[in-house]
Amino acid sequence: MPRKPCFAIVGAGAIGCYYGGRLAEHGHDVHFLMRSDYEHVRQHGLSIKSHAGDFELAAQQLHVYKSSREMPKADVVIVTLKTTANGQFAELIAPLLHEGTTVVTLQNGLGNEQQLAGPFGAERVIGGLAFVCVNRMGPGDIRHTDYGLIKMGEFGRGISPRLGQLCEIFNSSKVPCQMLEDLAQGRWEKLIWNVPFNGLGAAMGLTTDRIVGCPEGIALAREIMQEVVATGRSAGVEMDDAHIEQNIARTLTMGPYRSSMQIDAEMGREIELDAIIGQPLEVAKEHAVATPTMRMLHQLLCIRASVK
Amino acid sequence: MPRKPCFAIVGAGAIGCYYGGRLAEHGHDVHFLMRSDYEHVRQHGLSIKSHAGDFELAAQQLHVYKSSREMPKADVVIVTLKTTANGQFAELIAPLLHEGTTVVTLQNGLGNEQQLAGPFGAERVIGGLAFVCVNRMGPGDIRHTDYGLIKMGEFGRGISPRLGQLCEIFNSSKVPCQMLEDLAQGRWEKLIWNVPFNGLGAAMGLTTDRIVGCPEGIALAREIMQEVVATGRSAGVEMDDAHIEQNIARTLTMGPYRSSMQIDAEMGREIELDAIIGQPLEVAKEHAVATPTMRMLHQLLCIRASVK
Repeated sequence: MPRKPCFAIVGAGAIGCYYGGRLAEHGHDVHFLMRSDYEHVRQHGLSIKSHAGDFELAAQQLHVYKSSREMPKADVVIVTLKTTANGQFAELIAPLLHEGTTVVTLQNGLGNEQQLAGPFGAERVIGGLAFVCVNRMGPGDIRHTDYGLIKMGEFGRGISPRLGQLCEIFNSSKVPCQMLEDLAQGRWEKLIWNVPFNGLGAAMGLTTDRIVGCPEGIALAREIMQEVVATGRSAGVEMDDAHIEQNIARTLTMGPYRSSMQIDAEMGREIELDAIIGQPLEVAKEHAVATPTMRMLHQLLCIRASVK
Repeated sequence: MPRKPCFAIVGAGAIGCYYGGRLAEHGHDVHFLMRSDYEHVRQHGLSIKSHAGDFELAAQQLHVYKSSREMPKADVVIVTLKTTANGQFAELIAPLLHEGTTVVTLQNGLGNEQQLAGPFGAERVIGGLAFVCVNRMGPGDIRHTDYGLIKMGEFGRGISPRLGQLCEIFNSSKVPCQMLEDLAQGRWEKLIWNVPFNGLGAAMGLTTDRIVGCPEGIALAREIMQEVVATGRSAGVEMDDAHIEQNIARTLTMGPYRSSMQIDAEMGREIELDAIIGQPLEVAKEHAVATPTMRMLHQLLCIRASVK
């Protein structure tokens, strides 16, 4: 990876605009693939209101594109598509790759690295977990309200020089970034919270405080978490039981939080059902782990997703 | 039971007003216990719009009371309370009983007969299943939109002369009524539909057509029904597997139906959680029947019930 790599942001929604915007703000060479917001951003630029400091990127400083085929080859492709668009990987990403391009997915849930490794090669792939509250209020109008940390790891490998370099670039661009020795462990640890609270929040249309607002809700969240931990372990991931009670305790004090999946469901948008619940369930099936609550949660979410 | 028994209706909501009203319309001696609607009905009577024929009961023809203690002893007490009020049985029913009083519960779900038999004696108790769509639009304003059949059986016994007499009285009062040889079987057969569709409808805020609107929803409803059937069997009730597919088929063609539990949840009223899900689950626990989906459904409904 060159010292000043060329970045391509594929999927310039809230997350892509925020992290790509931070890199651009700090002088990096960033190229944004945009679809619905292309015209607006090309004319008016990006406006980012952030609890870590507001900034604007004027239209003339920005490189925005409507199609990957118009974009330069990138040294680092950052994938921030909704996982429901993963079927478009080949079309959107292939044109951006040279021999040494690294592909970083900052997407939710499980299976994204595998789905990138298939067509493009596992050696390219880095996965990142974004702990961030950021919303797109309108075209080019991004609101970053909390957190911001990225934890990043090589796919199926330990820490590498390029991982260190990427982390360094983010850290020096106002994006706190940590390296993960074990990406899979990071993914599964995040699922401990995401499966129950994205899942139940979207299935029932309830914020997290409601779900843990009665003993039966806490018990159910805990059972789902136990199944996630058991499933992760069955796949060879080291999982610490202590994370379960930590996640319960954290949720009990976090107030009325609307998970991204609840928001998607309520807005009538496609929910990230496969990445967050479907893929973990597949792993459970493969290793014959009993997951009655995850299974029923998946059924409930299929019902929710089928309601237009 | 005398040839012209004196009836007391305990819980004069939609169901109590409709069935009690039909009896009064046909010249029977009916006494209504009312609480919230007492003043209005005492002054303005009852107005019943019914697909089987509208009728009015003028205030001067009606016997309405605010307290059981003001009412005459009854030959037949008809209990149409919401099951969430079963804790008030002693207070509301005891004053109405003479030695030979029969107590008929037309309430939903499981456990009502047992809860009446405890304090008042099993020999008094008859249970009835009301297959009826009837709503209270306002005080004294009842709308009967569909069905109306009552299936009635002795609690823990076969058909009796008094059961025949009661059935006859209903049938000659524009209320189709059938006798059940086996009340428990009738209750459990009704639960095959009620547990999944009241339960999921209330948990997710969805009409029945949405729940069976995707293959995963049908599969989930079927799994819940299988658990209900297995639980009924474990309690010695003869259950026919064919009911499962019959109930699925019926629901697929019944259109967007809002179950009573969904309506209660959406109106912020207490839901009949214990009678419809809690009691069947207790039976399953007692006989060590595996009911993972019923158990999770119960947890979801506890969450829903705790949301004010």
